[in-house]
Amino acid sequence: MANSKFEYVRAFEQPDYLLPNTWVVVRVDGRAFTKMCAKYNFEKPNDRRALDLMNAAAKAVVTDLSDITIAYGVSDEYSFIIHKSSGLFERRASKLVSTIVSTFTANYVHLWPKYLPETPLSFPLPTFDGRAVCYPTVSNLRDYLSWRQADCHINNLYNTTFWALIQQGGLDNKEAEKALAGTLAADKNEILFSRFKINYNNEPEMFKKGSVVFRDYELVEPDSHTITETMDSLAEPIKQSKTQTENDKKRRAKACIVVDHLDIIKNDFWDRRPWLLSNKPGKIPKET
Amino acid sequence: MANSKFEYVRAFEQPDYLLPNTWVVVRVDGRAFTKMCAKYNFEKPNDRRALDLMNAAAKAVVTDLSDITIAYGVSDEYSFIIHKSSGLFERRASKLVSTIVSTFTANYVHLWPKYLPETPLSFPLPTFDGRAVCYPTVSNLRDYLSWRQADCHINNLYNTTFWALIQQGGLDNKEAEKALAGTLAADKNEILFSRFKINYNNEPEMFKKGSVVFRDYELVEPDSHTITETMDSLAEPIKQSKTQTENDKKRRAKACIVVDHLDIIKNDFWDRRPWLLSNKPGKIPKET
Amino acid sequence: MANSKFEYVRAFEQPDYLLPNTWVVVRVDGRAFTKMCAKYNFEKPNDRRALDLMNAAAKAVVTDLSDITIAYGVSDEYSFIIHKSSGLFERRASKLVSTIVSTFTANYVHLWPKYLPETPLSFPLPTFDGRAVCYPTVSNLRDYLSWRQADCHINNLYNTTFWALIQQGGLDNKEAEKALAGTLAADKNEILFSRFKINYNNEPEMFKKGSVVFRDYELVEPDSHTITETMDSLAEPIKQSKTQTENDKKRRAKACIVVDHLDIIKNDFWDRRPWLLSNKPGKIPKET
Amino acid sequence: MANSKFEYVRAFEQPDYLLPNTWVVVRVDGRAFTKMCAKYNFEKPNDRRALDLMNAAAKAVVTDLSDITIAYGVSDEYSFIIHKSSGLFERRASKLVSTIVSTFTANYVHLWPKYLPETPLSFPLPTFDGRAVCYPTVSNLRDYLSWRQADCHINNLYNTTFWALIQQGGLDNKEAEKALAGTLAADKNEILFSRFKINYNNEPEMFKKGSVVFRDYELVEPDSHTITETMDSLAEPIKQSKTQTENDKKRRAKACIVVDHLDIIKNDFWDRRPWLLSNKPGKIPKET
Repeated sequence: MANSKFEYVRAFEQPDYLLPNTWVVVRVDGRAFTKMCAKYNFEKPNDRRALDLMNAAAKAVVTDLSDITIAYGVSDEYSFIIHKSSGLFERRASKLVSTIVSTFTANYVHLWPKYLPETPLSFPLPTFDGRAVCYPTVSNLRDYLSWRQADCHINNLYNTTFWALIQQGGLDNKEAEKALAGTLAADKNEILFSRFKINYNNEPEMFKKGSVVFRDYELVEPDSHTITETMDSLAEPIKQSKTQTENDKKRRAKACIVVDHLDIIKNDFWDRRPWLLSNKPGKIPKET
Repeated sequence: MANSKFEYVRAFEQPDYLLPNTWVVVRVDGRAFTKMCAKYNFEKPNDRRALDLMNAAAKAVVTDLSDITIAYGVSDEYSFIIHKSSGLFERRASKLVSTIVSTFTANYVHLWPKYLPETPLSFPLPTFDGRAVCYPTVSNLRDYLSWRQADCHINNLYNTTFWALIQQGGLDNKEAEKALAGTLAADKNEILFSRFKINYNNEPEMFKKGSVVFRDYELVEPDSHTITETMDSLAEPIKQSKTQTENDKKRRAKACIVVDHLDIIKNDFWDRRPWLLSNKPGKIPKET
Repeated sequence: MANSKFEYVRAFEQPDYLLPNTWVVVRVDGRAFTKMCAKYNFEKPNDRRALDLMNAAAKAVVTDLSDITIAYGVSDEYSFIIHKSSGLFERRASKLVSTIVSTFTANYVHLWPKYLPETPLSFPLPTFDGRAVCYPTVSNLRDYLSWRQADCHINNLYNTTFWALIQQGGLDNKEAEKALAGTLAADKNEILFSRFKINYNNEPEMFKKGSVVFRDYELVEPDSHTITETMDSLAEPIKQSKTQTENDKKRRAKACIVVDHLDIIKNDFWDRRPWLLSNKPGKIPKET
Repeated sequence: MANSKFEYVRAFEQPDYLLPNTWVVVRVDGRAFTKMCAKYNFEKPNDRRALDLMNAAAKAVVTDLSDITIAYGVSDEYSFIIHKSSGLFERRASKLVSTIVSTFTANYVHLWPKYLPETPLSFPLPTFDGRAVCYPTVSNLRDYLSWRQADCHINNLYNTTFWALIQQGGLDNKEAEKALAGTLAADKNEILFSRFKINYNNEPEMFKKGSVVFRDYELVEPDSHTITETMDSLAEPIKQSKTQTENDKKRRAKACIVVDHLDIIKNDFWDRRPWLLSNKPGKIPKET
């Protein structure tokens, strides 16, 4: 059985290399998660166990693929940022997206019993889709992440008020929707506080800000030079020796991968963690 | 926190619609499976439990996504064929690939303890990547599948002989490689038979032919018209009423999804199962 | 001055191969032609000299690129069909589109003085843009061409009536538009005939049907087998000897390239010219 | 003749938007120009008339499309740079490439008799192909242009020496090739000077540096801030009022488009012409 007469079919595979020197965002989204939340009785408006599971799966992805410099998650979605200088999988879109989605899914399913021990999985299983988007500048990339975190805030304030009206206010879905139609952020804060004694500022950071996953090093005192405007040059790949590359790799491997709930819209987060954009590992903090 | 000033970043998402009216093959491949086989001590040259697990995961994918007309798997890879008339996910490549890879991975990880109960999973977990390729004609599509099945045969004959030389013949890897260098299929059959009393024809069909997954209906007696040449017209979508579409959907849902090990290179397989290419569900077989 | 440190920029070029085994349509469109028609005083509703010039430019393109099997033009647009088996320029979209657009433009500008001797060109010059679209089946391809020819008919009937109302009926643009709002084809025919004694059927074929450009061979008596349904298999590339390929090339070079105004929606046109879809040159007609 | 049943074919057109916020280079190349040079007896190693014609065609393109910020040409190729903030033709690759190629070709053919009055055009006419490439940063863009200009220098030094050996040294092609095999730049300079009394530095700038086309404004005294490192932020689009945009448009239209032969590899060229990267028109120079 010769294979040669069939092999021509390989010519139909079309290359899908992502543009070099751009930031690659791979966003992973839960498939039909509204249905899944209902099926597994996730708590409303936020199920801490489910979010912890998302974060654990994301951490496994970042651990596995060191070209990912930072990841940001909210609700049933997670965005993984691959550094602009990365040549991982030759920057093939389908390979990058499918590997990240598969690693995320594998860990989500495998870790499920640890985070939701009383809710066994059943068919159809939770799954995720994904897509890759390129951003040419640091400014575009940060705007992408700001977009997701602003979305998190807007949705969480809405959902917190919506479910307070239902769970504590006794309204049904329609009534709660109607009560919130046309309200501004201040109105929702007011409803929460005056009717339910909830100070939104005291809500858990994870719910208000979402989750950031990254390799952690010693924070840097931002000086006048590491300001946003120069960040693109900061992100330019620097030619370095093999020894230096090896050292970087080792330091990166030693770094602790943290899950935190911080403001990533403001400059401060980035100024104090220059390694996120430079891809140059920082100092491993001394044990305390 | 207004989101409007960040939303422009959506314009960077680039469309990736696959060409309409073409067969879409989504091939899923194990990531670093050589390493994984070693880690989990998979049997050589074929580990029946691991292949059964692959087949179970593939069956779950076909069950979940009814636009998949047939799937073919061998070793650590599986190809899923989406009918040319399908508009699933608007034919977006990343959505199709990531959903199939995620569903496959979720089921693979979830079903692992059932198929390999004595080999618990550990990090890093098994994962898969995927890609989509379009084929314009039935002839191209069948050549793709023939390519994979011919590959299965060639590799399995090689591996069966290679591991017989090692496991029963006492050779080491290098010696076995050398013994097989330049041999033809007939030579390998001869080695197997004369030295190890193995008749390759009696090897399990799953090892020799790989696995096919599809919805099963009553076999059709091929008449002179359903020959390969007319298959492209057979595959052309037929305009039909909503009732008819609904009926098709119901019949498809009722159909039994089978995993079998058949020759898919020859015409006979396709002639007797016209629904695979026409996407027109066949007759549900009477219970026996 | 070493070039090596800059050469990395080549890696930013992204491949744009069109899917193999599909029909490639390159459609060329006039840029800002409404303005150009006004500038050069083209006759309304059709300027025969301008259409002859379009046809001459298209004929030059078909002569130059023998992988083009047929071209169809109407108004300021021309569609060039590259046979599905063609590997011209490795099927790179930008190369195919730009070469065809450039050859079309060069001939259009160069031949202008021959077809419009009393209207010298001035800046900005007439230019064209282009795009490539792939069609997997003969049926899709013919539907594409039918779409363009049906469009030609619809527009020409409208324009003929519109300009009759203005040029002979004394209406202004607004009044003519209003008079035609909501009319069907029959209504327009009636207006033309009853008010202006114009029998639309007697209008020039070039205006009613557009123009087809192709290599001409002896017409074939269509038998019962060369019907639409089998056309896809007809179009499948046949393996042939080098001598045969050389002979084909010679016959193709000898063939007369004609510009005609025929119905390309009905089967008859295609049944009698099987070489258009098979890419197998026909018989050179005897001189008469 | 209803068109509705054919219109579905539009769905086969695939979008080809170029990534936003990246520099678009459209490079135009002569098709089979070696053959054309021979046919029209172009002078070797450089034909001034032919280069002047290339420059005139390029100037027409830059005049016509004000989103082009700079163009660079050498031999039978021309690169047109579209500013990263441009939304011309929705950034569709085929539209951008085909329009630029068509405008270039139209002007090249139309202006031919002016630049080569004694060499009338004949079929097949000179034509060009084109492709678009995106560059994310100013640094990448400048490296692209440096690559082309370094190539110009390397080729011109080689060709000048090669043709001196033939035209003045009496060698044939093979002998000249052999004489130059393995030589460095210094060797070629030496051959030119010692054997033919040619000081390469005195060769015409157009031959040594190629040609740059751009809108000219008053040169700027570069201060310490407009250095290469900050150029990316310089190129970031600035939000501005409609009046400002209108003013810019007018100033751009008033600007003189020049063809010059300058070093575009060094910083000086860019530092003194900040409008090239900022897309912010400079000061119109006072008439002198």
